[in-house]
Amino acid sequence: MKVKVGVNGYGTIGKRVAYAVMRQKDMRLMGVTKTKPDFEAYRAKELGIPVYAASEEFLPRFEKAGFEVAGTLGDLLEEVDVVIDATPGGMGAKNRPLYEKAGVKAVFEGGEKASTAEVSFVAQANYEKALGRDYVRVVSCNTTGLTRTLNAIKDYIDYAYAVMIRRAADPDDSRRGPVNAIKPTVEVPSHHGPDVQTVIPVNIETTAFVVPTTLMHVHSVMVELKEPLTREDVIDIFEDTTRVLLFEKERGFESTAQLIEFARDLHREWNNLYEIAVWKESISVKGNRLFYIQAVHQESDVVPENVDAIRAMFEMAGKWESIKKTNKSLGILK
Amino acid sequence: MKVKVGVNGYGTIGKRVAYAVMRQKDMRLMGVTKTKPDFEAYRAKELGIPVYAASEEFLPRFEKAGFEVAGTLGDLLEEVDVVIDATPGGMGAKNRPLYEKAGVKAVFEGGEKASTAEVSFVAQANYEKALGRDYVRVVSCNTTGLTRTLNAIKDYIDYAYAVMIRRAADPDDSRRGPVNAIKPTVEVPSHHGPDVQTVIPVNIETTAFVVPTTLMHVHSVMVELKEPLTREDVIDIFEDTTRVLLFEKERGFESTAQLIEFARDLHREWNNLYEIAVWKESISVKGNRLFYIQAVHQESDVVPENVDAIRAMFEMAGKWESIKKTNKSLGILK
Amino acid sequence: MKVKVGVNGYGTIGKRVAYAVMRQKDMRLMGVTKTKPDFEAYRAKELGIPVYAASEEFLPRFEKAGFEVAGTLGDLLEEVDVVIDATPGGMGAKNRPLYEKAGVKAVFEGGEKASTAEVSFVAQANYEKALGRDYVRVVSCNTTGLTRTLNAIKDYIDYAYAVMIRRAADPDDSRRGPVNAIKPTVEVPSHHGPDVQTVIPVNIETTAFVVPTTLMHVHSVMVELKEPLTREDVIDIFEDTTRVLLFEKERGFESTAQLIEFARDLHREWNNLYEIAVWKESISVKGNRLFYIQAVHQESDVVPENVDAIRAMFEMAGKWESIKKTNKSLGILK
Amino acid sequence: MKVKVGVNGYGTIGKRVAYAVMRQKDMRLMGVTKTKPDFEAYRAKELGIPVYAASEEFLPRFEKAGFEVAGTLGDLLEEVDVVIDATPGGMGAKNRPLYEKAGVKAVFEGGEKASTAEVSFVAQANYEKALGRDYVRVVSCNTTGLTRTLNAIKDYIDYAYAVMIRRAADPDDSRRGPVNAIKPTVEVPSHHGPDVQTVIPVNIETTAFVVPTTLMHVHSVMVELKEPLTREDVIDIFEDTTRVLLFEKERGFESTAQLIEFARDLHREWNNLYEIAVWKESISVKGNRLFYIQAVHQESDVVPENVDAIRAMFEMAGKWESIKKTNKSLGILK
Ligand SMILES: NC(=O)c1ccc[n+]([C@@H]2O[C@H](COP(=O)([O-])OP(=O)(O)OC[C@H]3O[C@@H](n4cnc5c(N)ncnc54)[C@H](O)[C@@H]3O)[C@@H](O)[C@H]2O)c1
Ligand SMILES: NC(=O)c1ccc[n+]([C@@H]2O[C@H](COP(=O)([O-])OP(=O)(O)OC[C@H]3O[C@@H](n4cnc5c(N)ncnc54)[C@H](O)[C@@H]3O)[C@@H](O)[C@H]2O)c1
Ligand SMILES: NC(=O)c1ccc[n+]([C@@H]2O[C@H](COP(=O)([O-])OP(=O)(O)OC[C@H]3O[C@@H](n4cnc5c(N)ncnc54)[C@H](O)[C@@H]3O)[C@@H](O)[C@H]2O)c1
Ligand SMILES: NC(=O)c1ccc[n+]([C@@H]2O[C@H](COP(=O)([O-])OP(=O)(O)OC[C@H]3O[C@@H](n4cnc5c(N)ncnc54)[C@H](O)[C@@H]3O)[C@@H](O)[C@H]2O)c1
Repeated sequence: MKVKVGVNGYGTIGKRVAYAVMRQKDMRLMGVTKTKPDFEAYRAKELGIPVYAASEEFLPRFEKAGFEVAGTLGDLLEEVDVVIDATPGGMGAKNRPLYEKAGVKAVFEGGEKASTAEVSFVAQANYEKALGRDYVRVVSCNTTGLTRTLNAIKDYIDYAYAVMIRRAADPDDSRRGPVNAIKPTVEVPSHHGPDVQTVIPVNIETTAFVVPTTLMHVHSVMVELKEPLTREDVIDIFEDTTRVLLFEKERGFESTAQLIEFARDLHREWNNLYEIAVWKESISVKGNRLFYIQAVHQESDVVPENVDAIRAMFEMAGKWESIKKTNKSLGILK
Repeated sequence: MKVKVGVNGYGTIGKRVAYAVMRQKDMRLMGVTKTKPDFEAYRAKELGIPVYAASEEFLPRFEKAGFEVAGTLGDLLEEVDVVIDATPGGMGAKNRPLYEKAGVKAVFEGGEKASTAEVSFVAQANYEKALGRDYVRVVSCNTTGLTRTLNAIKDYIDYAYAVMIRRAADPDDSRRGPVNAIKPTVEVPSHHGPDVQTVIPVNIETTAFVVPTTLMHVHSVMVELKEPLTREDVIDIFEDTTRVLLFEKERGFESTAQLIEFARDLHREWNNLYEIAVWKESISVKGNRLFYIQAVHQESDVVPENVDAIRAMFEMAGKWESIKKTNKSLGILK
Repeated sequence: MKVKVGVNGYGTIGKRVAYAVMRQKDMRLMGVTKTKPDFEAYRAKELGIPVYAASEEFLPRFEKAGFEVAGTLGDLLEEVDVVIDATPGGMGAKNRPLYEKAGVKAVFEGGEKASTAEVSFVAQANYEKALGRDYVRVVSCNTTGLTRTLNAIKDYIDYAYAVMIRRAADPDDSRRGPVNAIKPTVEVPSHHGPDVQTVIPVNIETTAFVVPTTLMHVHSVMVELKEPLTREDVIDIFEDTTRVLLFEKERGFESTAQLIEFARDLHREWNNLYEIAVWKESISVKGNRLFYIQAVHQESDVVPENVDAIRAMFEMAGKWESIKKTNKSLGILK
Repeated sequence: MKVKVGVNGYGTIGKRVAYAVMRQKDMRLMGVTKTKPDFEAYRAKELGIPVYAASEEFLPRFEKAGFEVAGTLGDLLEEVDVVIDATPGGMGAKNRPLYEKAGVKAVFEGGEKASTAEVSFVAQANYEKALGRDYVRVVSCNTTGLTRTLNAIKDYIDYAYAVMIRRAADPDDSRRGPVNAIKPTVEVPSHHGPDVQTVIPVNIETTAFVVPTTLMHVHSVMVELKEPLTREDVIDIFEDTTRVLLFEKERGFESTAQLIEFARDLHREWNNLYEIAVWKESISVKGNRLFYIQAVHQESDVVPENVDAIRAMFEMAGKWESIKKTNKSLGILK
């Protein structure tokens, strides 16, 4: 028996999760919702995915274009066991009553407040917390990135401080700026630190900045250690950590551009880099302080988490069994 | 029997052509050259492609990194029937004597002068000219783009004028600028017009500008017609033209960002968009003037031309047979 | 006697026109309106400019910040003979009834439709048309730029075609994108051509593109001549044309970045480059076609036009007398 | 008697220092050197500044263009008491023997190693150290920025950590990239921290990143305090610190774009923002950690330091007397 999955909100995250679901042997994608018949809607149809209107109000747009939909969100909810809510940030909270009423479980994304769900989730950090739950929130791309590496060294952390240099817009977004400025989040520390704490109990503070690039976020991480760790220890730990990869500038990775090129060279779908990329040369210990620099592919790092969340919610697999299945199905390198 | 192909210069163009060659049933990729053991070199090895040092002088780099090469360019040339020279612009001319000496045919790229080869080539425009030749130049990404659409309407052209808005750097290049400026080519008309004339005898002038983006070039084309054509005629012609696709803003294609997203949604390798993208709404006839706007994916539009050039040089197939084979092997939509 | 001027909408254009008005001996700046007490409002106050709330609804914002305003727009209108409406595009049309009721003349900007005013205005092209008028529209930055150079050669123009490569956002705007894309106006020809025709009767068509830069717009102009002109003729004509300057790549002007640097080196306020910048090397005649490339400083080229419009509306000076006064007061080079 | 000053290297920094020197009553600008007759050379001439060829080898360029120079660097050195060496980074060290031979003092810039001069200098931090010296290095824009604020609170600092988000290219540079990537300095901690220590003995570490913008650098500063300080204390201290200004997001400063707009609104020459800009809202104390975010106008923050360095080297004024004179002459707000 396969878990029946619907995706509400078929944008950057939604379309990637839909793809990932289609590659799982224990899941079945029942359909996705769209608000308009754009090229993504046509593509979904070509792939044989049933396309539903996100609500009745959008039906006229589809009709006008002669695009036949399979129904509306309400119809989709009748077909599924769980819905992935990948609508724009904040909308998930408004949608939750619909899911409750339809009696379907739901996975929310990082644009929702933690309180929207029962648990905030990063598979390798707290898979067990989601077992049997009805409402799980996969945390944001940045929080997922920080959690993956910090969780691996969490026993050594006295205090962590991360500066987040964020991409301004996703690659397919030609509206958002800035074109030529650096934009700080002046509320310091920023809200990103506490968000990590919804997943793991680590003492962390963050500041954040937006810069004019589309490819990836970059984090400058500094950790004050409570137990000694050497550079080599950290390298070993990260090499043993799933969904984290080490990259060497020495091999040509001088910026986020070459990290994405690496994913392109792998012929990853949408150049997804599901793994957090840590620059090996940047890992450094001075006294009781550990430093490292990592990059996060905002479009895709949370995708495997969505798949694992479903498995946990339906108690379909244990933690490492699910992570392994997901990794293998998506070509995640380790 | 398969034609044995080597690739000298495994960068943006070289790696894509190598990939395309590997997908042809009548060709065999014998190896590629690299100047250093960067991640692209490691990737090639992973794919089972023999990696040669581009020349003896680069050997120490590979040795130092413990990267075993299959030999040097000289060794590769002994294995192949034809070499794709995708070295940086201008270097091909210097390499030609090596190829002559080794008795191998060579395909050059658009960074070389027309005089470097016997014929300048765009498959759908002048395949026959390359039949049996030893040295063929696949023209630049921009020239290929202009030739594909202009060739389709060439009998109607009295005069063509194209303004080319060029991407500043390829996506994997984090060195070239500008960051925030528009850079005109002040020599007007620019050299791009005459380059089209090395392929088809059309009366054309061009101007060119560099802008801070990495995704695609965009051309604003204006044609003075010698015979009447309607907007619908042009749409029909372009719909019948191979390696040209119509895109509608109506469907969400509001910039080059969504065109690339379309290729990503198709899961094209490296988001290649081999086809020239014409905005359907932009096709317009006013009096005797035809206007249209097209975008060119500089990293990939010339790739199928390289494959077809090889077939022509070895007289392995007629024009449409080759184009069809290439298109099919690469998933080119039409 | 001095004409009393108010500025409604103190943003990019409004603050520059206010500055220019303050430098005219025959005008007096009575005040400006603001919607919020941001740094521009504080700066105005520091300069001794009376600041009015743009309407009653905005008063609470000022009160909350303890920023004392001189009144609201209604109060300002009672003080002035003419108002410069530099509110966001389209808002001027809605404001016109207010000005009519208050019995003040008004200058509108290029974001308004031509029908909002009695005449569309570029001083050197049609100053006389604005003599004694009550409502005049200074055309957009792009239209002003095209009109200045085309007007100088209008007797030779059979047909003009301009491709406009537009900056995405003004330098002080950190919201608008795109970050990494080229965005065509797919309605071809674009509306910019007809806008030139509201000022001079020239046969013109245009296409337009937005690119990720903030500094200037660039135009690639092609003109089909009805009378022969040589490159040298055109250089002579442009050298004799007010508010047009020739720049040589030879002297380091390789992009819009150096044009702006030139204005910065002059210590122009806000690096205003009131003059249209034509690349001298780009001026070229091939057969009956003239080509040239020009750059337009969108933030400032329309500023002198606003000043001249006021003089014409109050019949305070003849065309060249006004242009000379304005040029001298702003340090316009010729 | 006025100190006679020459400027070797009339680029971003050199032209600003030359301007600043011209505004000092106790200094006289004797000339500047150029390597080519570009628009900056012509502008210098227009301003009445004698232009010398940077060396004999460059003379032909000037002759070819018919640009008369006043001599070569050697001639300029005979006229001056001190030279500002604002040549590209690393060239100053090579030039020092020339200055020694000519018996002139020299100020070097931040692109030189500390060992090139006798003292590394930021006026408000260590003016006295430069008194009577022959060779002084004004530290880099980033080091100057960090030193200004850290020096003000240095007695409270146990440990400081700064993440530097650097502009990729200066506004007049249309060659350097990246266009769309974030580039970390993978050597962690970076060399910027130790550079601060050449001026003040503070325990500091840094990491650095390059992003595609031209306007300003931004620093995310975290300080571990050895003595308690409140947010209000820090605000008070920074308000009392020369060449440091507080800016409020509340007033519209949401990114570096508006900071530069502020300088433009002041009609500062080249929109120089000599003062380090600290976002007031970002100043925050959590436990024993102080956070703040500051922006540095790389083109101009070191300019007043150059002027003060000269006064110290010739013992023309005490620390605060010099700083006051410099501030007043340049319109520095405090
Ligand atoms: N893009 C990222 O970098 C990223 C990374 C991690 C998490 N997230 C989170 O994922 C969620 C989705 O973000 P995204 O980036 O995919 O956004 P997106 O804008 O790319 O996609 C959202 C999709 O929802 C659709 N939509 C809008 N209104 C809807 C409605 N009423 N009902 C159904 N669908 C509707 C939109 O048309 C769009 O296709 C957010 O919570 C976001 O914070 C985004
Ligand atoms: N990138 C484009 O947009 C594009 C489009 C069409 C045509 N072209 C043309 O294709 C050719 C290759 O351009 P590219 O963009 O792939 O360049 P690239 O810089 O991406 O790749 C060139 C490769 O050649 C290697 N190389 C350097 N020196 C070499 C040597 N001596 N021997 C062998 N290899 C050497 C480089 O290491 C690099 O891997 C040029 O003629 C260019 O004009 C480029
Ligand atoms: N920026 C340019 O490149 C440019 C060039 C030429 C012409 N124009 C035209 O000039 C006009 C103004 O454009 P801008 O670029 O200066 O815009 P802007 O956004 O910089 O300035 C508009 C100002 O009007 C204020 N405003 C908003 N609502 C208002 C209201 N109800 N009443 C009064 N003021 C209000 C805004 O706060 C802002 O300060 C538009 O018509 C535009 O098309 C702009
Ligand atoms: N631009 C900044 O952000 C910045 C900030 C602070 C300090 N600095 C430092 O200031 C120094 C100058 O940097 P810049 O940004 O002004 O560089 P720049 O490139 O703008 O200017 C350097 C000037 O020196 C000239 N030059 C080149 N070779 C020369 C030679 N042999 N003799 C004389 N002049 C020569 C160049 O033509 C140019 O005009 C460097 O040490 C740099 O590290 C730069």
